[in-house]
Amino acid sequence: MKILVINPNSDAQMTELIRKSAEAFANGEFEVICKSNPTGPRFIDSYWDELACAPGLIQLVKENEDQVDGFVIACQDDPNLDAVKELASKPVVGIAEASMKIASMLGHRFSIISTSIPSIPNHEVQARKYHVDPVLASVRAPGEELRDKSDEEKFMACARAAIEDDRAEVIVLGCAGLADLAKRMQDELGVPVLDGVICGLIIARGLVQCGISTSKIGRYRGPHPDNPPA
Amino acid sequence: MKILVINPNSDAQMTELIRKSAEAFANGEFEVICKSNPTGPRFIDSYWDELACAPGLIQLVKENEDQVDGFVIACQDDPNLDAVKELASKPVVGIAEASMKIASMLGHRFSIISTSIPSIPNHEVQARKYHVDPVLASVRAPGEELRDKSDEEKFMACARAAIEDDRAEVIVLGCAGLADLAKRMQDELGVPVLDGVICGLIIARGLVQCGISTSKIGRYRGPHPDNPPA
Amino acid sequence: MKILVINPNSDAQMTELIRKSAEAFANGEFEVICKSNPTGPRFIDSYWDELACAPGLIQLVKENEDQVDGFVIACQDDPNLDAVKELASKPVVGIAEASMKIASMLGHRFSIISTSIPSIPNHEVQARKYHVDPVLASVRAPGEELRDKSDEEKFMACARAAIEDDRAEVIVLGCAGLADLAKRMQDELGVPVLDGVICGLIIARGLVQCGISTSKIGRYRGPHPDNPPA
Amino acid sequence: MKILVINPNSDAQMTELIRKSAEAFANGEFEVICKSNPTGPRFIDSYWDELACAPGLIQLVKENEDQVDGFVIACQDDPNLDAVKELASKPVVGIAEASMKIASMLGHRFSIISTSIPSIPNHEVQARKYHVDPVLASVRAPGEELRDKSDEEKFMACARAAIEDDRAEVIVLGCAGLADLAKRMQDELGVPVLDGVICGLIIARGLVQCGISTSKIGRYRGPHPDNPPA
Amino acid sequence: MKILVINPNSDAQMTELIRKSAEAFANGEFEVICKSNPTGPRFIDSYWDELACAPGLIQLVKENEDQVDGFVIACQDDPNLDAVKELASKPVVGIAEASMKIASMLGHRFSIISTSIPSIPNHEVQARKYHVDPVLASVRAPGEELRDKSDEEKFMACARAAIEDDRAEVIVLGCAGLADLAKRMQDELGVPVLDGVICGLIIARGLVQCGISTSKIGRYRGPHPDNPPA
Amino acid sequence: MKILVINPNSDAQMTELIRKSAEAFANGEFEVICKSNPTGPRFIDSYWDELACAPGLIQLVKENEDQVDGFVIACQDDPNLDAVKELASKPVVGIAEASMKIASMLGHRFSIISTSIPSIPNHEVQARKYHVDPVLASVRAPGEELRDKSDEEKFMACARAAIEDDRAEVIVLGCAGLADLAKRMQDELGVPVLDGVICGLIIARGLVQCGISTSKIGRYRGPHPDNPPA
Repeated sequence: MKILVINPNSDAQMTELIRKSAEAFANGEFEVICKSNPTGPRFIDSYWDELACAPGLIQLVKENEDQVDGFVIACQDDPNLDAVKELASKPVVGIAEASMKIASMLGHRFSIISTSIPSIPNHEVQARKYHVDPVLASVRAPGEELRDKSDEEKFMACARAAIEDDRAEVIVLGCAGLADLAKRMQDELGVPVLDGVICGLIIARGLVQCGISTSKIGRYRGPHPDNPPA
Repeated sequence: MKILVINPNSDAQMTELIRKSAEAFANGEFEVICKSNPTGPRFIDSYWDELACAPGLIQLVKENEDQVDGFVIACQDDPNLDAVKELASKPVVGIAEASMKIASMLGHRFSIISTSIPSIPNHEVQARKYHVDPVLASVRAPGEELRDKSDEEKFMACARAAIEDDRAEVIVLGCAGLADLAKRMQDELGVPVLDGVICGLIIARGLVQCGISTSKIGRYRGPHPDNPPA
Repeated sequence: MKILVINPNSDAQMTELIRKSAEAFANGEFEVICKSNPTGPRFIDSYWDELACAPGLIQLVKENEDQVDGFVIACQDDPNLDAVKELASKPVVGIAEASMKIASMLGHRFSIISTSIPSIPNHEVQARKYHVDPVLASVRAPGEELRDKSDEEKFMACARAAIEDDRAEVIVLGCAGLADLAKRMQDELGVPVLDGVICGLIIARGLVQCGISTSKIGRYRGPHPDNPPA
Repeated sequence: MKILVINPNSDAQMTELIRKSAEAFANGEFEVICKSNPTGPRFIDSYWDELACAPGLIQLVKENEDQVDGFVIACQDDPNLDAVKELASKPVVGIAEASMKIASMLGHRFSIISTSIPSIPNHEVQARKYHVDPVLASVRAPGEELRDKSDEEKFMACARAAIEDDRAEVIVLGCAGLADLAKRMQDELGVPVLDGVICGLIIARGLVQCGISTSKIGRYRGPHPDNPPA
Repeated sequence: MKILVINPNSDAQMTELIRKSAEAFANGEFEVICKSNPTGPRFIDSYWDELACAPGLIQLVKENEDQVDGFVIACQDDPNLDAVKELASKPVVGIAEASMKIASMLGHRFSIISTSIPSIPNHEVQARKYHVDPVLASVRAPGEELRDKSDEEKFMACARAAIEDDRAEVIVLGCAGLADLAKRMQDELGVPVLDGVICGLIIARGLVQCGISTSKIGRYRGPHPDNPPA
Repeated sequence: MKILVINPNSDAQMTELIRKSAEAFANGEFEVICKSNPTGPRFIDSYWDELACAPGLIQLVKENEDQVDGFVIACQDDPNLDAVKELASKPVVGIAEASMKIASMLGHRFSIISTSIPSIPNHEVQARKYHVDPVLASVRAPGEELRDKSDEEKFMACARAAIEDDRAEVIVLGCAGLADLAKRMQDELGVPVLDGVICGLIIARGLVQCGISTSKIGRYRGPHPDNPPA
């Protein structure tokens, strides 16, 4: 089994971080390939960035569909997830969708710790899209008052506030490539801390293993025969 | 006042239909410009089509933002509406959003009459995105049994079924460029029949007139300064 | 085109404020007539006030239906809106419904700034009635601590709190006749600030222009033939 | 204990039917007084009828508040219920609210059997207002095909269809004054059949007995001191 | 009429408190019998406790079904309520369900005052199960800062915070056997304070009196004939 | 890695079927142990059955917690899932929760094919508990008209109706131990057909592999120290 994890932005360092934790999870039991999107933006933060990463992301899916068994889109915005589910015949998993749905099985309510305050509404919109808004305790991101702290301290402070003030019972990391944090945060906070890439791999590997993929009879039926992709 | 109505596909004939009814509505009181998207797909039916129309659509918005006062995206899928709201400083209205929200003011529940059965889920997804799912009576599209009928007969049959079987009190046409049908259907059915383009113009013109545009402090804050659009 | 804006209370001074801003919006392109309800209560704050304004409001609608093309009920409680939609054949727009639905198109979530704390639940009930509760960030009203401030300072303080603490991206003014504030608040806050009367006029004018009115086949079918209004 | 059941319409015969079943329920354990609204419409079917019954209904509440311990408004439209809850200091129960909430305790989902098809949306609007829409299986009313049947046969046919086709497990009668039917329908259908007036009495009597009434600190705070009821 | 109130835990002192207030409510008009569950846990706080109380609770229902007319399960967790509704042919009322649904008729939103912070999510889960989550203002429980206060002071402090900070208009006591507090709290707070046992008795007595019980055709159809209870 | 799949009923033949498909899925990569509940009912259909299987189910969890890494409860009613999540420190997955949440990632809406019509409401209650009710197309079960068909034909007929009439895009099998059907149905229907046990294993294995288990700080905090399980 071979799963392609696509980092839809062009940040090779983030892809490397993702690769390390993905391989640690795969543990040699299946193959994980991690690729950046060389034509994508440096990071994905806005609707514009989602569009900007589309051509390279689609290209990566098309080029690799024959070689791999499934895809994970490794960005907590799930950019162009619907389009990729539609275009690929192999299973496609968005890490936001996977992590939020798994989070909802582990406790009463979860919080997402995001990298920036302005992106909070986008995570809320997504939670509603995936029907988990009733169990979203909060989306939190580090504010000005944490400016001088390390990334780890920032995320930890937000997670603590989510647990204490919003009564979150599970934490979802709001950005791919933080897997190294997940483990340490979980140990220190004493609650499940979910890294989206791992959650995406759990679902993708499972679907591949049992031979299930996206339904093609309705929402993800794909391009109309009279209107084929270029 | 000058409003640009963008048909995100490349079908110049549909654009011409849209132009006629938009100008009839504008009635010389404001200027409406209607443009096709020359690099867009022939029609917009799938998530892929939505991505495929993005570059041309964005281009049209950028080229025209200085010349016009507002935008209407004239496709009942509201393709890339969030991205355009984010990129433009002028008001941007999607015809699906505008028509569904206006429909919800005119009766208990409305139905969307769509061009094809496979696209029904996409309209349902959109209705939920715009929070009008509790007042969506149904989405209907002509089935095989109507194969030999004219477009008008097909839409009329679906609308009648929506009214009688689903108790819709208002009809929303599920495709731009059907404005010529709207009037005749409304006269015959005796319920409001909404053409999305007109609904989009109602909101766009109103926003322009009172100097209101998209909020730029959160969801539509636009590209990050470190990550500017190419 | 002639639109009658009815202030359902008896406060002629408020009607005058409404008239000024309505005429500024109409800009000579259509006629706006603004009338107080001489037999209505001095202001509308309770369910009782809503009933108390009904006879005069209904009377105004009946007396004027032949002379005008549409109605706007200019009170953020939308008093008796369902009954007026039912009785009039011309379009009828409530400013609460219009402003909340337009607000939902301009940003992720909106807040209503109300005149008094006890009226907060009534605005919440209304938001749910109009299905916009999922995008209502909050309803805020000035508390005791703002007692000595001017009206403008009070509203501004509440709006700032809504933006900063509740992450509202759009502000809806919770009372008709504050149009003069809307503009100044918008300039200072940097987010859309909606005056309900203007929102009501946007929709009403649009419906009149395209010949659409309330559906009469179900919820707003009107009095039973065996039970005609006196 | 003395409870006033107000039939908000002027139909003395219906009031008499209500009285009989109310007294049978009270069983001499508490006093029930049933009054028609002499200035109300003959029946209540539209929003207009709801307004038309208001003056007489309010009058009856005011005249009797010192003499009785609680009120039941005996019409499945709960006309002016919010206003009466606001004005009275004694408990006020609407039969639609009481019957739907009791129905939701007795089975998975319930259906309302209404007297006429056009009133179906109004019952749906109410179910949503009372937050029981997720357990409303359907609202049904006799159609043309039942024209020649007796009232009992009509209601029975609708209830059977609700049970078989909509999987209703509980039936709520959609009109006051059908208590004589409730018992027979229940015996024949083998599911709970709720008469609203009895449900209203269950709640009203209970509230009176334990000294609980409407909260007066928020939504039902009542008229503003500067704006007293005439 | 004879109603059995079952305290599903083994705390005879709590049962005695329940008995006192239940009898005060019954006022000699009907008979109330209150029983502890001798094999149940000392108190009910966890899912485990709910299972642990099941055998004794079921036993009490079976032993008494021929002798009584209805049941109230006197624990704000409504432990095994669905199973008891299923097994008994007589009416069965859970005090959480009854108190939340009655609370929703008395004001805009209610808060539950619970005995311990960890149990807050369980009350939230229940509110959603009963479809009253949209009108649940909050669940509050005394924190560490109230450690040294009396129970009454603790509950009072939480209720005040719910009213002032969460805008609750009605208070529901989150534990059976606090009826003595309810009255004093209501007098001091000036809002309805609901004791679940009394709410349960209101509904149970009403159902018995009008001959209505749980629907047996669907959700509560009971054990399959091929799979009878031991 | 060792995962214990518990069939909470006593049907050893069903357990054998489950074992076969679970082992086929595990494919030697991890160990799956499947156990029946010898003291459980023959099948699980009612709330009573859920209680009846509890002691044996709890016993199996306790006896095995030191030997295994995670649990799957193999019954589409997820009986006592909350209690087991609470009691076990290892991950616990219910097959209804897992299959419905995975189904929601594979298409617009899914249907559950259940074994009997009376159990339909129970599946609906569960879908709401897991917040997937907005994407539940329907629950269907074979009616009388399919009496003489084989189980496979029955399920196939229901699934076809769900796809064609309810527009389901994904099918969830409403009973454990049908894994042999899943594959054949999927091949014939051309849509994903989910067997709950496999879905449960996907999640359980993933959680074990990345060291995540149920959050213990809130809803699943477990028995109170003063009230320990016997």
